[in-house]
Amino acid sequence: MKIQAPYLLFLGDASDELSIKMAKGVADWRPELCIGEYKLDGCQVTTGQPSMDIATAKAAGAKTFVLSFANSGGTIDASWIPHILEALENDMHVVSGLHQKLTDIPAIKALAKQRGLDLIDIRHPTQTFCTGNGQKRSGKRLITVGTDCSVGKMYSSLCLERGMKARGIDVDFRASGQCGILIAGDGVAIDCVVADFIAGASVSISPANDSEHWDIVEGQGSLSHPAFAGVSMGLLHGAQPDAILICHALNRTSMRGIKNKPLPSIEQTIALNLAAAHVTNPNAIIAGIAVNTSSVDEQQALDICRQISQELGYPCVDPVRHGVEPILENIL
Amino acid sequence: MKIQAPYLLFLGDASDELSIKMAKGVADWRPELCIGEYKLDGCQVTTGQPSMDIATAKAAGAKTFVLSFANSGGTIDASWIPHILEALENDMHVVSGLHQKLTDIPAIKALAKQRGLDLIDIRHPTQTFCTGNGQKRSGKRLITVGTDCSVGKMYSSLCLERGMKARGIDVDFRASGQCGILIAGDGVAIDCVVADFIAGASVSISPANDSEHWDIVEGQGSLSHPAFAGVSMGLLHGAQPDAILICHALNRTSMRGIKNKPLPSIEQTIALNLAAAHVTNPNAIIAGIAVNTSSVDEQQALDICRQISQELGYPCVDPVRHGVEPILENIL
Repeated sequence: MKIQAPYLLFLGDASDELSIKMAKGVADWRPELCIGEYKLDGCQVTTGQPSMDIATAKAAGAKTFVLSFANSGGTIDASWIPHILEALENDMHVVSGLHQKLTDIPAIKALAKQRGLDLIDIRHPTQTFCTGNGQKRSGKRLITVGTDCSVGKMYSSLCLERGMKARGIDVDFRASGQCGILIAGDGVAIDCVVADFIAGASVSISPANDSEHWDIVEGQGSLSHPAFAGVSMGLLHGAQPDAILICHALNRTSMRGIKNKPLPSIEQTIALNLAAAHVTNPNAIIAGIAVNTSSVDEQQALDICRQISQELGYPCVDPVRHGVEPILENIL
Repeated sequence: MKIQAPYLLFLGDASDELSIKMAKGVADWRPELCIGEYKLDGCQVTTGQPSMDIATAKAAGAKTFVLSFANSGGTIDASWIPHILEALENDMHVVSGLHQKLTDIPAIKALAKQRGLDLIDIRHPTQTFCTGNGQKRSGKRLITVGTDCSVGKMYSSLCLERGMKARGIDVDFRASGQCGILIAGDGVAIDCVVADFIAGASVSISPANDSEHWDIVEGQGSLSHPAFAGVSMGLLHGAQPDAILICHALNRTSMRGIKNKPLPSIEQTIALNLAAAHVTNPNAIIAGIAVNTSSVDEQQALDICRQISQELGYPCVDPVRHGVEPILENIL
């Protein structure tokens, strides 16, 4: 199901940047899909989009009201329901990235049904998937993988898509997480799929395509993460990547959410991912290394990337700071 | 939820051995949990348990009526419903390993509720799981892993449990699939868990225990299987095994259900599984190799196991034919 743009980004009463990561992602990468943001009293953050009320957004053409913030527990607060109902009364579809389903709230469900509008809970896939079959599909695919969770796989993927588009290459960003789905307009929250169908759902994210077409598949988790490696593995197998971009963030002291767990080295991450990728694509190669250098200054960022590239023999950049040309040179 | 024994094994109108694998498994490994089998006209197979009707089984003390066969599609045939209702009327709980839920059939749901009986759909976990946290738990764990799916991981696990029990070791078989759950009386069908929670569900299968206690964790799938490796990975990480038993079946020409996909070598399977296991247990070792030799004669079986053991330097047996002593010697 394609999410209809443009979006009105509902930020609720979010008070920190991290909780509007989803709204920021779409405002940064697809401003053309956004018409504005809608905030409640107490909201202390902004995506940079113009602030507007629901009626104004409707008049400006907004098609979808997006709950694009996170809260602890992922429940829909009772205080937000009147705003969701107002959006439905203004003929907007509603999308939510929260854990609790829009469809579990009777008033919302009833009004959406009455007005013929869609409620899309992007963390709850409704598709029926096949299991993976390991068969080669036409088209080219790159997947981003990480030394850890939250190291910049989505941003690196989007940088690659932009870089390829600038070269006139037929390319699509393929989303596997809720923020990516909002950016792409479709995709599958792969970590919410039943375990038997991870690889099959991954196949459906990057289906057969023209032989020269590239899919840039947004990776999830890390093969070295004690909680989420199963998700990473199934996604990788289903993607049957021709090329793998290794993503890494500087200055992590422990794996995300895990006490006293050192990150794997980039070399270990390369070895683990190549071995796994070869199960469904014996020709998979390493495209390069993307380093999130946001914790160091410009010169340090350049020095670190140069050093990693020399040591490991692959192009290494911070895609956000340095662009992705060396990586594209390597794979095209 | 512990499944209450003894069981009356319902075979429906199954006509081939493979479709009653679940019933055969429990009849072979836990005959003391079974009171008999109940067959419909047309059923051409047997578990070896005495055939009896529902009232007779009830009089003999049966506590649970188990739909212990598989059919294409996993739906509950309308013709079986009267028999399920009859079991409920005889105060038996009902367990099903089919895909369609017992609780989705109103007449069954209503009667079970009215009589205060449990309906347990073992392919649909109802527990709430945490995500994996990678923290070390007390107790010792061995997991069985495979070069492919359906190579004998459950049988090898049960042979190990029996061998350890014979030595007086405090040990439990821990089930991760529907047949194993029926044998153990509890467990989690790990391939039915939401992807984010595979490793966390695996933790719940083999919780912290006495320091000298062994859990033998039934593995699923294979890290080299294009459809199910994500399941295998999360299960392995959550199990944080001290020892890994590599299971292999002779004379496979392609991976199960996948066209033209050669099996990985035992060496590759060792390398993949050790690398993955070291994420949550840096001290994980290979316990040995279990070969399903059912496709060759006695002498060939012995020769093949001896050859593999010499080549790879690990004990190698067919646990069903040769017992598990060399493996126990290696790990205890």
